[in-house]
Amino acid sequence: MNAKEQFIATQAKVDEAAIAPLPNSRKIYVEGSRPDIRVPMREISQADTPVSSFANTRTEPNPPIFVYDCSGPYTDPAAKIDIRSGLPALRAGWIAERGDTVQLADLSSEYGRQRAADPALDELRFPGLHRKPLRAKAGANVTQMHYARRGIITPEMEYIAIRENLRRAEYIESLKNAGPTGQKMAAVLGRQHPGQNFGASIPGEITPEFVRDEVARGRAIIPANINHPETEPMIIGRNFLVKINANIGNSALGSSISEEVDKMTWSIRWGGDTVMDLSTGKNIHETREWIIRNSPVPIGTVPIYQALEKVDGKAEELTWEIFRDTLIEQAEQGVDYFTIHAGVLLRYVPLTANRLTGIVSRGGSIMAKWCLAHHKESFLYTHFEDICEIMKAYDVAFSLGDGLRPGSIYDANDEAQLGELKTLGELTDIAWKHDVQVMIEGPGHVPLHMIKENMDLQLEQCKEAPFYTLGPLTTDIAPGYDHITSGIGAATIGWYGTAMLCYVTPKEHLGLPNKQDVKEGIITYKLAAHAADLAKGHPGAQIRDNALSKARFEFRWEDQFNLGLDPDKAKEFHDETLPKDSAKVAHFCSMCGPHFCSMKITQDVRDFAAQQGIAEEAALAKGMQEKAVEFVKSGAEVYRQV
Amino acid sequence: MNAKEQFIATQAKVDEAAIAPLPNSRKIYVEGSRPDIRVPMREISQADTPVSSFANTRTEPNPPIFVYDCSGPYTDPAAKIDIRSGLPALRAGWIAERGDTVQLADLSSEYGRQRAADPALDELRFPGLHRKPLRAKAGANVTQMHYARRGIITPEMEYIAIRENLRRAEYIESLKNAGPTGQKMAAVLGRQHPGQNFGASIPGEITPEFVRDEVARGRAIIPANINHPETEPMIIGRNFLVKINANIGNSALGSSISEEVDKMTWSIRWGGDTVMDLSTGKNIHETREWIIRNSPVPIGTVPIYQALEKVDGKAEELTWEIFRDTLIEQAEQGVDYFTIHAGVLLRYVPLTANRLTGIVSRGGSIMAKWCLAHHKESFLYTHFEDICEIMKAYDVAFSLGDGLRPGSIYDANDEAQLGELKTLGELTDIAWKHDVQVMIEGPGHVPLHMIKENMDLQLEQCKEAPFYTLGPLTTDIAPGYDHITSGIGAATIGWYGTAMLCYVTPKEHLGLPNKQDVKEGIITYKLAAHAADLAKGHPGAQIRDNALSKARFEFRWEDQFNLGLDPDKAKEFHDETLPKDSAKVAHFCSMCGPHFCSMKITQDVRDFAAQQGIAEEAALAKGMQEKAVEFVKSGAEVYRQV
Repeated sequence: MNAKEQFIATQAKVDEAAIAPLPNSRKIYVEGSRPDIRVPMREISQADTPVSSFANTRTEPNPPIFVYDCSGPYTDPAAKIDIRSGLPALRAGWIAERGDTVQLADLSSEYGRQRAADPALDELRFPGLHRKPLRAKAGANVTQMHYARRGIITPEMEYIAIRENLRRAEYIESLKNAGPTGQKMAAVLGRQHPGQNFGASIPGEITPEFVRDEVARGRAIIPANINHPETEPMIIGRNFLVKINANIGNSALGSSISEEVDKMTWSIRWGGDTVMDLSTGKNIHETREWIIRNSPVPIGTVPIYQALEKVDGKAEELTWEIFRDTLIEQAEQGVDYFTIHAGVLLRYVPLTANRLTGIVSRGGSIMAKWCLAHHKESFLYTHFEDICEIMKAYDVAFSLGDGLRPGSIYDANDEAQLGELKTLGELTDIAWKHDVQVMIEGPGHVPLHMIKENMDLQLEQCKEAPFYTLGPLTTDIAPGYDHITSGIGAATIGWYGTAMLCYVTPKEHLGLPNKQDVKEGIITYKLAAHAADLAKGHPGAQIRDNALSKARFEFRWEDQFNLGLDPDKAKEFHDETLPKDSAKVAHFCSMCGPHFCSMKITQDVRDFAAQQGIAEEAALAKGMQEKAVEFVKSGAEVYRQV
Repeated sequence: MNAKEQFIATQAKVDEAAIAPLPNSRKIYVEGSRPDIRVPMREISQADTPVSSFANTRTEPNPPIFVYDCSGPYTDPAAKIDIRSGLPALRAGWIAERGDTVQLADLSSEYGRQRAADPALDELRFPGLHRKPLRAKAGANVTQMHYARRGIITPEMEYIAIRENLRRAEYIESLKNAGPTGQKMAAVLGRQHPGQNFGASIPGEITPEFVRDEVARGRAIIPANINHPETEPMIIGRNFLVKINANIGNSALGSSISEEVDKMTWSIRWGGDTVMDLSTGKNIHETREWIIRNSPVPIGTVPIYQALEKVDGKAEELTWEIFRDTLIEQAEQGVDYFTIHAGVLLRYVPLTANRLTGIVSRGGSIMAKWCLAHHKESFLYTHFEDICEIMKAYDVAFSLGDGLRPGSIYDANDEAQLGELKTLGELTDIAWKHDVQVMIEGPGHVPLHMIKENMDLQLEQCKEAPFYTLGPLTTDIAPGYDHITSGIGAATIGWYGTAMLCYVTPKEHLGLPNKQDVKEGIITYKLAAHAADLAKGHPGAQIRDNALSKARFEFRWEDQFNLGLDPDKAKEFHDETLPKDSAKVAHFCSMCGPHFCSMKITQDVRDFAAQQGIAEEAALAKGMQEKAVEFVKSGAEVYRQV
């Protein structure tokens, strides 16, 4: 036993880095229609702006802004964090009051019971779970889609509506009330470029009814297993903010339970909207339990990975029975979405024979091997309706896997890939027949100009079920930088309509990501998702850009750092050049020094105008009038009304 | 005097990191129509692929591939490198034989002569220049555009044609001759997706005549000052490979001459196609001399920066005379292109008053201040034809600066920016009247969906003069990651038609980039430029992707590292997880371990077929025939002919 495996449950501790406060930030909760709907946001406060005019100096407040917060109770100083107890079950009451679930006497999964009974695992086992698993009552369907289609707005839906709006209206209001120029400030800081959204239907404000309607028509999903009541409801759909997923998980080559829990808390701190546990190493079951119990974000898995471990890695020995037991095992732990590679059909496999990089999806290659070995369609496909029955008994969402996604630019958009996509569209219909929520996984490696085709086909064939893509990587030639080759593709496909972007770390193709790589991947994908939101014209998306740019222009360095996605790194970079604290109020950038700071010069330009005793715009216009006849003729038109 | 300034010319040494050999790489020279046209490329050799079938094992060679090489003699072990002597003047003969230049007895610039005569600078001064400056003979025009328009194919143009083709035809030929499956290999590895090029005119092969024609019509430029004979000719134009620029330069806050020379050699090692020296600190003149004499790539500057230093940072005291002397000073040192912010007109300045971030271009803000202080158009605009006269006497190309580029998402594509762009189009016509080469600088901060408008307007208003953009950054919210926010925009605008991408480092907005930041910026921009080449369908662009993907699929780890843009980092990342040398031949990825490697499983699928004693494709088809009637009916169609 090496050092990594010396994990003892009773001594497990939260990663201190996960609970450190974020600078100038405060966790707030926005209450909904009932006191148990409390939606977390991060409020970032800012310094005032000093304003000088005619020898008077006053200050103008910069109201705090509100940003989406995935970090859960960890960043709430009032929350008691003990990872041995797990997070509070905030949805438990909502689930119970629907009255459509039963508490089971024991786990339904044979494997789950074996693990629970194995004394050798006592030392590892999560000690904090004292409730029994839930399942839908016989004949009941507990999916959010099912409720939505019956016209029910669940507390989860209301929670999401509040969350997606990010107190936009309140922020604009606070600007208006911020001193004499508040009206103008609100007009400027609330302004946003009209987007280009390729047929999306993004409303000005998200209402609970809109959330319900989007879920009902399958255009969005709420991954929310009834056995994961700790989750803070979130939504994935093209008409909502673009989300990102972070992959974690151990492998045969390393990493322990505590490392994986740390990666999860680290991922959500920096903005992971969901986390996939892709463990393929030891103690997959116990690792997952620790992760789920401590995760405020939905957890996804690829159940075939664990099933394969159960047959010692021999794909051809996989059976429906083993797989079924694995699904139930994981569903009763609380996994919120399952990647299921049911679209890997027998007839598609030969289409991969002439590929440059064959089948690169692990799940896809496992199923292809099974299909060939048995010369028949996989149990994922033949038992798809049986799987739906399981999904709807726990509200696990499908993430229909793209087992035949291209693994190289060469293989992009080939027949195998597009054939599978068509099948995923057919499976979507079947899942929807059962009111089971579905998203669709997408590539992979695709050159920039071939990305649109992926999105267009997906929207058409999967009828706007949310698309969830891995990148795509836009070139193969930069191992070590594939977070960037794929971040380019991710921003692009997010703009076109992809609902969630699966991150890629710098270690992709090369090794297992460490915490630093996880953070690098997350921040890259957060900025890509945000670039997509801006391009789609998502309401309010530009508020954070505007606030940060104003801080930058006014040399409010700390605010510039804090409004960014990674305040720590921004501050660290700044301090490398100008380490003194006084530099944080320096009215020039550390890049250029005082003479060459264009922002300083711009300020001089404005001051120059102000010195003449008239308002800046008028001063500029006056100068023009005196000296430039041509300009006078059209002068009245050159000022934009803000 | 601090440690940084203790630079002593006679003890200057090349950065060892710049001359270390790149793994499995060899510098080759492709000879043109005359022995002094020797075009450098980097040849990357690869391991053989072992092929097993029917108990026989043979190997199939993977011929070396050729990649564009900006690194100059530094990576040639046969070259003698002494930065005190500078690089060989490889173009000196070509310039001389054109017979249109005169050698000057002394520097024409007053400031240049002062610096040369100042004994206090002796210790710093570059000691290796023993030739006199050149200038066009009276009435002559020595620009590459002038020759091109007279139908002359210069050695520079032929050099570029060879360079841009990258021995593509020879590589495909070498594949065909690589064993029994060579024809198939050539068809696969030479295959490329058709691009989407938005009206570009990219030929299948670059000929010297095509280079001439593109330069003649102004659609491409060859920055090649007659006083920079050390430069290895390269071209910037939408119908050629997308290029990238790296900015270096000291500031009032730090860095020495040797650090700047090191940054230049470091930049070109990783792929900087041109380097801009943006120094604004001490000893700008001497620093530039060291850089140019040791640079095999074109050097660009923003002369107004140095001019401003000459008037102690007081923009309003700038005069045409000071600026003119600066242009001549720099032209006689050998600067290949000048950024000139001649489009900042008086009437555009008030258009910036309502911006969120004012004027963020340093040059733009200097000129705006000058314009306001004097209430007239700048000397850059009023003396534009005088500037053209200087440019054509040395063949310095214009990089018409976008002094009013947006500094925030909020300010993107506003009237000030687009007004200036129109003026730049008018100035392009004037420069072209003088046969002076022109490229146009572009933004800046622009959301993804507003990038296309920039490119479309630039192509129209500047008549396809090459566009040279800074990013654009697609969001403002990620300080510390602006190489990525801008890499997304750079790949996108490169795809749309931008000819050169100016890099952004992670320190953008925060501090001065160090060597690590420079490399991070360069690799990010190389991959963005390459993603653009793939999307445009640039001939042969996919060769490197295909070769790398084949190496990846065959677990040729070292080849995968070496074919990438940064072999050092790829190897380092791999070694973190699987440090042993044996892991470099491991037939599984370090991410997943042996059970879960999809590439290994794909190989198993193929082996499974091979075991049946028939060829892989036939085996797959046979399996289908036996078991799946449906498939048989359409089986003949499912194999793609390679």
